[in-house]
Amino acid sequence: MLIKVNRKELTKHISIVQKAISQRTTMQILEGIKITAKDNTLILTATDTEISIETKLKAIVEREGEIVINSRLFGDIVRKLENDIINISVENYTMNLKCGDSIFNISTQKADEYPDLPKVEDDIKIIISAKDLKNIVKKTTFAVSTDESRIVFTGVLMDIKKNFINFVALDGFRMAIQKLVKETGIENKVIIPSRSLNELVKIIDDDIDVALNISRNNIVFKFDETVFYSTLLSGEFFSYSALLRDENKISTTVSKREFQLAVERASLLAREDRANLIKLNVNENYINIKSNSEIGDVFEKVRTSEHDENLDIAFNSRYVLDGVKILESEDIVLNFTDSVNPLIITEAEDETYIYLVLPVRLAG
Amino acid sequence: MLIKVNRKELTKHISIVQKAISQRTTMQILEGIKITAKDNTLILTATDTEISIETKLKAIVEREGEIVINSRLFGDIVRKLENDIINISVENYTMNLKCGDSIFNISTQKADEYPDLPKVEDDIKIIISAKDLKNIVKKTTFAVSTDESRIVFTGVLMDIKKNFINFVALDGFRMAIQKLVKETGIENKVIIPSRSLNELVKIIDDDIDVALNISRNNIVFKFDETVFYSTLLSGEFFSYSALLRDENKISTTVSKREFQLAVERASLLAREDRANLIKLNVNENYINIKSNSEIGDVFEKVRTSEHDENLDIAFNSRYVLDGVKILESEDIVLNFTDSVNPLIITEAEDETYIYLVLPVRLAG
Repeated sequence: MLIKVNRKELTKHISIVQKAISQRTTMQILEGIKITAKDNTLILTATDTEISIETKLKAIVEREGEIVINSRLFGDIVRKLENDIINISVENYTMNLKCGDSIFNISTQKADEYPDLPKVEDDIKIIISAKDLKNIVKKTTFAVSTDESRIVFTGVLMDIKKNFINFVALDGFRMAIQKLVKETGIENKVIIPSRSLNELVKIIDDDIDVALNISRNNIVFKFDETVFYSTLLSGEFFSYSALLRDENKISTTVSKREFQLAVERASLLAREDRANLIKLNVNENYINIKSNSEIGDVFEKVRTSEHDENLDIAFNSRYVLDGVKILESEDIVLNFTDSVNPLIITEAEDETYIYLVLPVRLAG
Repeated sequence: MLIKVNRKELTKHISIVQKAISQRTTMQILEGIKITAKDNTLILTATDTEISIETKLKAIVEREGEIVINSRLFGDIVRKLENDIINISVENYTMNLKCGDSIFNISTQKADEYPDLPKVEDDIKIIISAKDLKNIVKKTTFAVSTDESRIVFTGVLMDIKKNFINFVALDGFRMAIQKLVKETGIENKVIIPSRSLNELVKIIDDDIDVALNISRNNIVFKFDETVFYSTLLSGEFFSYSALLRDENKISTTVSKREFQLAVERASLLAREDRANLIKLNVNENYINIKSNSEIGDVFEKVRTSEHDENLDIAFNSRYVLDGVKILESEDIVLNFTDSVNPLIITEAEDETYIYLVLPVRLAG
């Protein structure tokens, strides 16, 4: 291999593939980035077997070749170099890297030991804008389960309908649904690991489109010069639509900011070992929130739009806050039915998002 | 106690005293802030027995009083309130706190169980500007020892001479000396815990003067409405001036940025378990730096001002970098004598700072 490559471009693309490098792999080859030089292009590949990333950049390739180099060391070196152009040559599995007054010689590994990328059959193709994708990830992944023993719930369900897609995350205490209106013409369900989605959005620029290919075991996201592969989780997801309801006894509008701050203050006295318990009394014009622990108590009052019914209901404040914090509307709508059915939170100006929290049942 | 206090002012002063709250105290009372209300002033006090802070703010005091309240809870509550004015009353050791639509009732403790602040006899008084003090702390505290078994070296020596003060930190591998030109008229030596200095500079605004009072066991820093007490470390410090020298075989000037980056790159292949070893060859116009580990090697070349002598010398790259990183001059001067005596680094435009690093002796 004998190449000349722009340092800034290489730095950018190393950072992209490094999202697929696991910190705790036991396979030494997976600590490496595979570099393929041909046709005046460098192809960088990394994988942790769950996430795989391939990204391309232009380079002057004087002699083609393919090797694997330690990702962390290669990234640290390239990031700390100073000149615009890096000269790289590989002979006898040693990479010689020259840039300005710096010379590095680094051992590399054979590329043919590197695992193959997943095969993808281009079964289903959907285009989603980076903006929508980032919004979906922000509004769902926080609600997935962290319980690895029920692995499907650590992922986000992508429930594809003919005219829309629902992205659904839940953990047994709360559920987040982001709807994306989109003519797909098909029906399908896949479950994407939430970690994949969180890593994906870190490397997507704004204002671009992302093409999704879905096959049996993998989903692939293509954008710019990059292809991002994620395995899918197999298993049966919860039939989430059963939890939704059309009728609410109370639908009341509050300022998102006022409600959030009141719940945050009330939760200062809610103790984690007592389920972060806060009690809400919903009356005609206000929601009263109270909480207490052995060190004291707190009473908060949030003005609401007027409504007829009264209700007492209790929550784990953490689950309420998680869902409220990520909302962007000035006003949000709180929908209650009774003290044992979930609170459903929606945005006043955007009907595509639903956040549902189960109440805590109080003895007596 | 019955008071009205401005929320922003109270928030600011709570943040100041919280610097003296230890995360791991075993005395419950030390998790608290003592609040004294009298003469339309609130006095907040906190101590971890090593650092003590007292700070004052204006308030409307309708009924005087004194209590101790949990620092973290009180701080979290006040920071999350929204209105401008907080109404606080204390009765039967319960603090009632009202602000807007928020009401908190919090248990407090008796103030008479709170430890007294150190007595200070105003023996020695020195004024130092915040700017100088922040520079001293930045350029010395990083070099103190972390070895608690030789406690004096975890502190910074303040070596007061008639016309200047030397602030000295060392750990057996390197030494940092920041000189402050100041007519003190006295001679004295005290050792200040580096943690105290680091906490102190966090709460000092720029562009103010700080008055230092030194007594036998304590040093006190006074500024604005705040008094910061620190215990002193007792014991014999190293006679550091013996390490300094007037004659250098090589005194050569390098770009601070180029030298730092070259050492940083070289240290990418220096292994921590082999003392982060980098080897320098100082010749007429360049310093060549090399390092290697089992995965590869690196060669760096940094242009220097011209000098006659040649020298080979080796260092722990971490100790070199620690001292170079904090310098602000464009050019720095590297002073060598031979391969077993320390490298002395100074700033080209500022003679008040000296950083000294011991070389690593190589076998053979």
